[in-house]
Amino acid sequence: MEQKKALIVGGGLVGALWAVFLAKRGYVVDVYERRGDMRAAGYSGGRSINLAMSHRGWRAVEKAGILEELRKVAIPMHGRMMHSPTGELTFQQYGKEGEAIYSVSRGGLNLELLRIADNFEHVRFHFHQKCNGIDPEQGIAHFEHTLTGELTTVKSPLIFGTDGAFSAVRASLQNRPRFNYSQSYLDYGYKELSIPPGPEGFRMEAHALHIWPRGNFMLIALPNMDRSFTCTLFMPFDGEISFESLQTDEQVAAFFNRFFADAVPLMPGLLEDFRENPTSALATVRCSPWHVADRVLLLGDAAHAIVPFFGQGMNAGFEDCTLLDELLTAHGERWEEVISRFSRERAPDADAIADLALQNFIEMRDLVADPGFLLRKRIAATLAERYPEEFMPMYSMVSFSHIPYREALRAGQEQEVLLARIAAAPGIENNIEQHPDVDRLFREWKAEMTV
Amino acid sequence: MEQKKALIVGGGLVGALWAVFLAKRGYVVDVYERRGDMRAAGYSGGRSINLAMSHRGWRAVEKAGILEELRKVAIPMHGRMMHSPTGELTFQQYGKEGEAIYSVSRGGLNLELLRIADNFEHVRFHFHQKCNGIDPEQGIAHFEHTLTGELTTVKSPLIFGTDGAFSAVRASLQNRPRFNYSQSYLDYGYKELSIPPGPEGFRMEAHALHIWPRGNFMLIALPNMDRSFTCTLFMPFDGEISFESLQTDEQVAAFFNRFFADAVPLMPGLLEDFRENPTSALATVRCSPWHVADRVLLLGDAAHAIVPFFGQGMNAGFEDCTLLDELLTAHGERWEEVISRFSRERAPDADAIADLALQNFIEMRDLVADPGFLLRKRIAATLAERYPEEFMPMYSMVSFSHIPYREALRAGQEQEVLLARIAAAPGIENNIEQHPDVDRLFREWKAEMTV
Repeated sequence: MEQKKALIVGGGLVGALWAVFLAKRGYVVDVYERRGDMRAAGYSGGRSINLAMSHRGWRAVEKAGILEELRKVAIPMHGRMMHSPTGELTFQQYGKEGEAIYSVSRGGLNLELLRIADNFEHVRFHFHQKCNGIDPEQGIAHFEHTLTGELTTVKSPLIFGTDGAFSAVRASLQNRPRFNYSQSYLDYGYKELSIPPGPEGFRMEAHALHIWPRGNFMLIALPNMDRSFTCTLFMPFDGEISFESLQTDEQVAAFFNRFFADAVPLMPGLLEDFRENPTSALATVRCSPWHVADRVLLLGDAAHAIVPFFGQGMNAGFEDCTLLDELLTAHGERWEEVISRFSRERAPDADAIADLALQNFIEMRDLVADPGFLLRKRIAATLAERYPEEFMPMYSMVSFSHIPYREALRAGQEQEVLLARIAAAPGIENNIEQHPDVDRLFREWKAEMTV
Repeated sequence: MEQKKALIVGGGLVGALWAVFLAKRGYVVDVYERRGDMRAAGYSGGRSINLAMSHRGWRAVEKAGILEELRKVAIPMHGRMMHSPTGELTFQQYGKEGEAIYSVSRGGLNLELLRIADNFEHVRFHFHQKCNGIDPEQGIAHFEHTLTGELTTVKSPLIFGTDGAFSAVRASLQNRPRFNYSQSYLDYGYKELSIPPGPEGFRMEAHALHIWPRGNFMLIALPNMDRSFTCTLFMPFDGEISFESLQTDEQVAAFFNRFFADAVPLMPGLLEDFRENPTSALATVRCSPWHVADRVLLLGDAAHAIVPFFGQGMNAGFEDCTLLDELLTAHGERWEEVISRFSRERAPDADAIADLALQNFIEMRDLVADPGFLLRKRIAATLAERYPEEFMPMYSMVSFSHIPYREALRAGQEQEVLLARIAAAPGIENNIEQHPDVDRLFREWKAEMTV
């Protein structure tokens, strides 16, 4: 029997995970990665250092066999902790009791995946190999060693592009006829800051994702295993309140004192962090098709990079692997069938989570401080509890289920109709539980939806 | 005084025209063009060989000083001549009496522009120079001679990217942070065919743009100076009726006999043309910003490639030149002001004509055979005649005015509301001129619009 072989371009999160899936199927897998071996050199990713892992991510790492190990280094966040301008705290639970998204270190997760992939005899990692493009017709990829400059050409019957938002594999597809592509930047940037551990450990509630929503900008914080928090400031690049407008230490200090007064005492390194850390941009990348014939396929950020506001970038990439693996099982590894089908069927879900992530930015930075929005959230929670079989809030569909993203998007739009109707019922804000209209409005809506 | 210098990458229609504008301002202009000198080698463009020149294009060539020469080789098309499946003809005038769009040979126009640009002492053309990218920070462009392989680096304080839909200059901008970009293909392709001259000249009405609208596909024909027509078939790539489905001569013949029976006798070379000519794709390209600092600017298709269905691609590119030239006059050639302002202010118009061109495809291939659509067109013509100062149809705004495209798009949407109302008036179809509701509905609409 012919040996089963595959080439993976990019050994980041999705590339390493996909190597595991292929290795389990008996493939000889070569993984080419631009960076050095992080087991030797430490992690040096360009992206945010925290990830929020939820159901879709967990299912994939479970399949890869590292669920238990990861659980030990993941911190559950049960809800959002909102910080008002005057320092008042409001907690908003994400899902049902016991449901949580998990703060995970990107570097740690990548290391773990690398380790488990490398344990397979037939998985070979090649580091410091920058991809200079592929020839999809020939099934050839070109690499350049970043230290020696040596050029290598690799031929493979299967090439997977898991090389991220700035994918070189995708760039090689871009000039092919009928390749649709878009990259779209927000006018907002982000900068990472830090809250170090206090003498008694975490300096804020550990099991929450903290948000300081301020309308047009926001600060968030996620807990780390070392009892620190990684903070991220999201703000317009230009304009009155913007990264542009914060040039001096004095300006930064005044800005934080004005808008994030309760956080300032927790951030002793604020001014230095602000000066030293880069201001990064936020892009959404969409393209189609993700494949060429039965030979080349983009996965993860290379196919669909999204903004981070739903915490679904890695989860979506990992779900790519799970779904592709399921298709392989369903179609007996007939790649000619599986690759085009995956490319066609998965794309609408990638589009949906891209839209949802953009939507969630508005929700996080602005709406979570809006009484009307908070009321609708409370109504949704009540409905979810009262009708557990019939009403799953959109956030839960995305984070705590495997329902296709496109269905979550559509359901969310339908739910907004119901929530607005209930929110308009007189006296509802003080009496969601007992209000007589809730059940009637729910039943009416349900009947409309099932027409 | 320092010498004024500029580099133009791409000597196609827009590049050559822009060289003329700059030369008139006293700039030393170097134009680098990938193809050979068409004055020696003949024209070998990759795009359709006919253009429909309308007001925006004419204004630009008038400024360039070649209006009179071009008029002589341009054929006015006063309206659309629709061919029904059974060969019946319906003529629909584009604008007012005397208004027309003009069929112009792309190659002939390019030659003329080249000639006039080259007449300026300080304009230098460099042929066979393929751009390998630019360094926008340094103001440097890299070229490779396509015959000798010689590499050249050119430094210039001003670099204009007029290298078309697949612009190498734009590709160099794509990986810069916050560069928004999209390329989006239709599922339709096109193929050029030909109706040669007959013994007595044109074999169909010469002063019209001929359309065979067939719902999901269409054939069009534009007159040439040699009394031939260039035909273009637009059709889905895949599906039941598609380029895919027409593989053999028999299939092509059967298809044309079924759908374009009146054209078949006029096309003796049909089968050979169909076999030999490529099937090309149709893309819309949008990006922003079009500039880097006060040094680099994209113009024409490099900045905004559109589908051909409004006949506005060249007109929009030429209008870029007119408007940029006007801004230079208004701001005393302060490039640092002019380039960013042009990039910012022109982009919404480019977006609007891209949308209008996509919209017009549906109109041409489908709606022009729709009685309701034809009625609305007749109503619009009546209104335009009755209220010449108050009602200019959207098509006329685009083709016979210099109104910004974005305003034409918006006005068109508003006009659709009025046209639908009038079309719903009982008995209107047999009596637009005398119908009592027309004036009332127009006045009501006008009052709403001016609120």
